[in-house]
Amino acid sequence: MKKSHLLYPLIIGIFAALIWFIIAQGERLPVREHAPLTTITPAAPAAPGSGVFSELLHHAQNPLSLLLLQIIIILCVARLFGYLAQKIKQPAVVGEIVAGIVLGPSLLGLVWPEAMNAIFPKTSLTNLQFLSQIGLAFFMFIVGMELDISKVRQKAHDAVMISHASIIIPFFLGVSLAYFTYQEFAPANVNFISFALFMGIAMSITAFPVLARIVQERGLTGTPLGTMAITCAAADDITAWGILAVVVAIVKSTGILSAVITISLALVFVFAMFFLVRPWLQKRMTAVQGSKTKVALAFFVLLISGYLAEVIGIHLLFGAFIAGVIMPQEMNIKSLLTDKLEDVSVLILLPIFFVLTGLRTQIGLLNEGHLWVVFGVIMLVAVSGKFAGSALTARIVGQPWQEALSIGALMNTRGLMELVVLNIGYELGILTPQVFAMLVLMALATTFMTGPLLDLINYCYARRHKVGINMN
Amino acid sequence: MKKSHLLYPLIIGIFAALIWFIIAQGERLPVREHAPLTTITPAAPAAPGSGVFSELLHHAQNPLSLLLLQIIIILCVARLFGYLAQKIKQPAVVGEIVAGIVLGPSLLGLVWPEAMNAIFPKTSLTNLQFLSQIGLAFFMFIVGMELDISKVRQKAHDAVMISHASIIIPFFLGVSLAYFTYQEFAPANVNFISFALFMGIAMSITAFPVLARIVQERGLTGTPLGTMAITCAAADDITAWGILAVVVAIVKSTGILSAVITISLALVFVFAMFFLVRPWLQKRMTAVQGSKTKVALAFFVLLISGYLAEVIGIHLLFGAFIAGVIMPQEMNIKSLLTDKLEDVSVLILLPIFFVLTGLRTQIGLLNEGHLWVVFGVIMLVAVSGKFAGSALTARIVGQPWQEALSIGALMNTRGLMELVVLNIGYELGILTPQVFAMLVLMALATTFMTGPLLDLINYCYARRHKVGINMN
Repeated sequence: MKKSHLLYPLIIGIFAALIWFIIAQGERLPVREHAPLTTITPAAPAAPGSGVFSELLHHAQNPLSLLLLQIIIILCVARLFGYLAQKIKQPAVVGEIVAGIVLGPSLLGLVWPEAMNAIFPKTSLTNLQFLSQIGLAFFMFIVGMELDISKVRQKAHDAVMISHASIIIPFFLGVSLAYFTYQEFAPANVNFISFALFMGIAMSITAFPVLARIVQERGLTGTPLGTMAITCAAADDITAWGILAVVVAIVKSTGILSAVITISLALVFVFAMFFLVRPWLQKRMTAVQGSKTKVALAFFVLLISGYLAEVIGIHLLFGAFIAGVIMPQEMNIKSLLTDKLEDVSVLILLPIFFVLTGLRTQIGLLNEGHLWVVFGVIMLVAVSGKFAGSALTARIVGQPWQEALSIGALMNTRGLMELVVLNIGYELGILTPQVFAMLVLMALATTFMTGPLLDLINYCYARRHKVGINMN
Repeated sequence: MKKSHLLYPLIIGIFAALIWFIIAQGERLPVREHAPLTTITPAAPAAPGSGVFSELLHHAQNPLSLLLLQIIIILCVARLFGYLAQKIKQPAVVGEIVAGIVLGPSLLGLVWPEAMNAIFPKTSLTNLQFLSQIGLAFFMFIVGMELDISKVRQKAHDAVMISHASIIIPFFLGVSLAYFTYQEFAPANVNFISFALFMGIAMSITAFPVLARIVQERGLTGTPLGTMAITCAAADDITAWGILAVVVAIVKSTGILSAVITISLALVFVFAMFFLVRPWLQKRMTAVQGSKTKVALAFFVLLISGYLAEVIGIHLLFGAFIAGVIMPQEMNIKSLLTDKLEDVSVLILLPIFFVLTGLRTQIGLLNEGHLWVVFGVIMLVAVSGKFAGSALTARIVGQPWQEALSIGALMNTRGLMELVVLNIGYELGILTPQVFAMLVLMALATTFMTGPLLDLINYCYARRHKVGINMN
């Protein structure tokens, strides 16, 4: 045995003994008992009751533990429902949205309110909200990156026309609906224009990401129908988020002058992003080396853009979206960033957003038959505006009926984009919990019906033409 | 021109007119004025004063805008100081830590307190703290992943012996120091054992990540010295974080029995992670397909591990670290995860942690000559314990003097690991702001001196042996 191997236990032993000795001595020193310094965060007070288990319970109730537990539960339930949704041939996101509603007052809170209040006490939601906000910002950034504006430009006319028609028709229907429901359903002290514009925008959203996933899952990528639908949805998203920015600006402003100035600032902001930041970024991205610096640069643009959008008054998420749109196509920067952000935001942070939406959705508020009639009208307006509006326009610009109807069915997908808009409206105080619940249900139903509608259209045409199914 | 191109402006125009008409009609509807529903988050009240600029200012002061602004400022300053540090051949992290102190009360707060209070008002720090906590958890997870336990086991004896000696000697010195400073510097109502154990652990930390970076930057990777130093630091980290878990358990517990049970639970937890979760994870990772599922699985283990550690009472960060250590080596899962997490956490979230540390560090508290003498003693104890302790042990186990001294210099690097430990102590209320400031300065000084010390050792030996520098 080497000499050093004998030395080892000796050294450790001697010093351990010395440490023990000093601690034993020090324990006899009097404890200082003057008033505690105010700048120190005091150690958490002992839990009421004694014993180890109450101590563990106490640790389990601190905000950090609770947050971790919430995330664990959210991820498990979201995963489970996402899996179930895929089993019935729905996109996983439909299951995840349902998971959120299941954990909220509409189901868990109804059958076992103690559990819901223990897992999601009202005071604990701030951190979750914060996380979901970050997740949405990343998500909108990714959505922005996935839009390829040059493609929209190429395909321009037909797609843009379908897209704009598929926004303005449901927007008009939404505004009309607002006219008849304002007296009964608008919150107090909200003026008509805010309520109407929000109802309009709520009707005219298309979920670009969910639509893209459905197109992909059905093997339509690259087909004329798939390309047309995706291009329409992209044009839709850009237009709808532009309108949303205007609506938020109007709602947040204190008067007409201030709204006009906000919108002008927003326009200056968008132009600056496109015509100053975009070329500059393209040059910088070519100049700098190392993916780390590129990622840092992209994040920086994202942060600044989000900040400016928020200060101007057109919402962080719009800034994140624009930052994504202006990211350079080349040099794989987009795939690099998507790679870094997508998993974290889609796997972890979006389910948190769904659950927060679910916690706000009180389906129990629709406890009168009368309200379900209103919900039916909302559904009718939503589907006829978006589905029929897009399908008719597609037919008018020359698509055959089958393609036109399929485009209508795809554009009718509200998905999580709608939820983002609804939450913004809710937070601005424009939607009451009742209207919010109805619109969430509408978003869910329209997303859910996309797959079956497409199947139905295919089935009908397959039968009529007595040919094989050519769209599956 | 196609017929549809004429239809387009027609459709848009008609519907735009219709929307305008309905809004004009609706504006005449009476605004509902009953009491607002309590469940609605009210829209932000208008800013005092009027005009657009006060409105923009108002938007800029909402918590979200402020948070974005804080992050933007933190990243800019951190980047600048990191760049300056690299210019004087220091690792960037030294500059980033200095950036934190510069933005805190020690410098910005001294010369321009209004700016510091405007950018970092006390009430706004919660979200930053939360982000930095997430960043640290990811970071500890990555540090854990980078440790290759099998390598430590192979090299076992010498490295482990140097490592343990380099912990227990400074630990002993730290405890001794606590004995003499307890009366003057311990916070009220903190018993001696907590204070002493924390001083001990504060003296015996080595910054594995900073050390690894220095070894890499000096081209020592793969050399006997580099390998030995990294293996020692890895063994150091595992041991020190184990001791820290015990110390936190003791400090948080209400009595001896409860401390013993907490430590037993911690042992059960660690054993379960190594001998149950680790093999299970290895099997699952081979079984599942697609990197997304693998990432989700790894996150899930990270979350559960952090949660259990927090509930047991041994800190989230310990759980994150252990989760990293048990990640399977194979199948590139580690590099996949590091890829996803490292940039976000290292580039964005760690600078936030440094600034929070800087905001807590009030160097101005050391306003008496007497306190600087105490700081001198702390520095002496820290350096002699870690540098001399490691160097002597390395010499005893048979390293030549030059290598032994170099290992001592490397192990003396406290880096950001020390800051993590100090913040835990501060949050537990064991370190007063005075002691905290002194220990932060100590961590900074010992990290800063590593490079020059290595140069000095090389220079001396190069002169003495009249041979070329063989370690540069």
